[in-house]
Amino acid sequence: MEITLKIRCENMKIVPRSKVIHSYSAKHEPAEHVKPNEPFVIMTEDAFGGQIRNEGDTVEGLDWSKVDGATGPVFVETARPGDTLVVELLEVRPENKGVIVTIPKNGILGEKPFKPSTKVVELSGGFVQFEKNVKLKANPMIGTIGVTPKEADVPTGFLGRHGGNMDVKEIVAGTRLYLPVFVEGALFAAGDLHAVQSDGELCVSAVEVAGEIILKFQLIRGKQPEWPVLETKNSYAYLACGDTLEEAAKYAAETAVRALMREHSWPFEKAYMFSSLAVDLRINQVVDPKKGVRAVIDKDFITQESVLAT
Amino acid sequence: MEITLKIRCENMKIVPRSKVIHSYSAKHEPAEHVKPNEPFVIMTEDAFGGQIRNEGDTVEGLDWSKVDGATGPVFVETARPGDTLVVELLEVRPENKGVIVTIPKNGILGEKPFKPSTKVVELSGGFVQFEKNVKLKANPMIGTIGVTPKEADVPTGFLGRHGGNMDVKEIVAGTRLYLPVFVEGALFAAGDLHAVQSDGELCVSAVEVAGEIILKFQLIRGKQPEWPVLETKNSYAYLACGDTLEEAAKYAAETAVRALMREHSWPFEKAYMFSSLAVDLRINQVVDPKKGVRAVIDKDFITQESVLAT
Repeated sequence: MEITLKIRCENMKIVPRSKVIHSYSAKHEPAEHVKPNEPFVIMTEDAFGGQIRNEGDTVEGLDWSKVDGATGPVFVETARPGDTLVVELLEVRPENKGVIVTIPKNGILGEKPFKPSTKVVELSGGFVQFEKNVKLKANPMIGTIGVTPKEADVPTGFLGRHGGNMDVKEIVAGTRLYLPVFVEGALFAAGDLHAVQSDGELCVSAVEVAGEIILKFQLIRGKQPEWPVLETKNSYAYLACGDTLEEAAKYAAETAVRALMREHSWPFEKAYMFSSLAVDLRINQVVDPKKGVRAVIDKDFITQESVLAT
Repeated sequence: MEITLKIRCENMKIVPRSKVIHSYSAKHEPAEHVKPNEPFVIMTEDAFGGQIRNEGDTVEGLDWSKVDGATGPVFVETARPGDTLVVELLEVRPENKGVIVTIPKNGILGEKPFKPSTKVVELSGGFVQFEKNVKLKANPMIGTIGVTPKEADVPTGFLGRHGGNMDVKEIVAGTRLYLPVFVEGALFAAGDLHAVQSDGELCVSAVEVAGEIILKFQLIRGKQPEWPVLETKNSYAYLACGDTLEEAAKYAAETAVRALMREHSWPFEKAYMFSSLAVDLRINQVVDPKKGVRAVIDKDFITQESVLAT
């Protein structure tokens, strides 16, 4: 993997795994500067900062200050507050070994009595081997990806309008993420790759892997969406969050309805009706202090222009 | 549509639209008796009991006692409490005209100021024509489908362990629904067809249509799942509900984790981990007093036997 990377990426800047931060904050020195349209590489540590290597390592011995980091920040030249940073995800390459853990009191069934435990799994041929006879198709995705908010020191384990630890399983190679720029240079950071994760990330851990991301940025000047927007081949999704799933769902729905009003010059009532037919509310994760719900709209019904306006 | 039906269904029993009930209750006389493996037809009125016919009819003049009905109850011969009723959905045929409404104070954005309004749409060629230049692929589905609980008089507009108004957009022709039988004969009823609905049914109304369902029943003796189970070509889903989305998600997740423990003889921790990789929590609707969340598991990882055990 590393060798392939060196060959393929020999002319690209590489932000190394050592440039790990645990907050989105303007106080951090940029780890790297890149220009719009310049492909580069971000190497990422896993969500546990590499502290869990085998099944004898459980979360009991963990240094929590090293958990949920992201690599960065990357200063995007000419990015200014008020712009939208377009993140084009060219490749997401997990390493071939991942870990999953249970953490007592955590996850959607945190009230149940259970033990801290760790499972190490291998990735090969596009699959995660969970057990001898149980394998899952890998879906390498980025759990944490965002820019620096105006208010300093938002932990990289949190999520919000700046992105962050959103755990959306559709943030994969071949998609585009639109993030509002709040500070000069955007100060982007990403990490927390998952080899595979379900909608919900029920037990609080997915298959946590180190890896690398190849990406490039573009900028849209002077406008930005209210929530991060994910563009896939067929859809746009607003990635909202709130204190409860209901609150997150409401924010996502409201933003989607306003976008439909703009696109079709519809009154509220008509856009609200249409959302009931064509806007899917989907759960990202239910296990962090803020809950994530995305509102997904097919590209048949909305254009980028309406999605990114506010 | 009616002619086709008469030709195709000439030897089948037909439960007519006039046999509408507004509660799942053992007090209702059976509208029809059918045997296991006997295909038959249920004709259904739309969710408004046919009261809204054109765009001048809004919910302001509605007789609410006629809303959210279902056709039935159908007595399934030999069905006994403790069994599972397997509902095989052979066809779901909407009429070619549907209505969508907004109802002030209702839906996920019910706090916003908006007017009661009605939209009538045509269905043709597998599409719903929302506006001149906006059409959606139709996905005819059953909003309300269930059996009679032991406690009498559960409104057909409610949802619960007996099924009811679940609004799951995957309850379509070609799927199987497993419902726990609580009373002699199961006393099944269904209605509230939607020509198309999104995950969330955001504004409280989908494209509400009258129509007909062709279905047959099978019985599984002496065991039943905790929640209704939907079987599609590739997956099983537990259809749970709760007072909040979080509560519904927790019930769905817990039931799925226990099924994985049974299937693979895994301890809780391992099944909980696996659920974080392979159990998708998906929103059904967020707009009724009880919220619905389904836990979807691919058939690669679970068998019918483990799904239906408790």
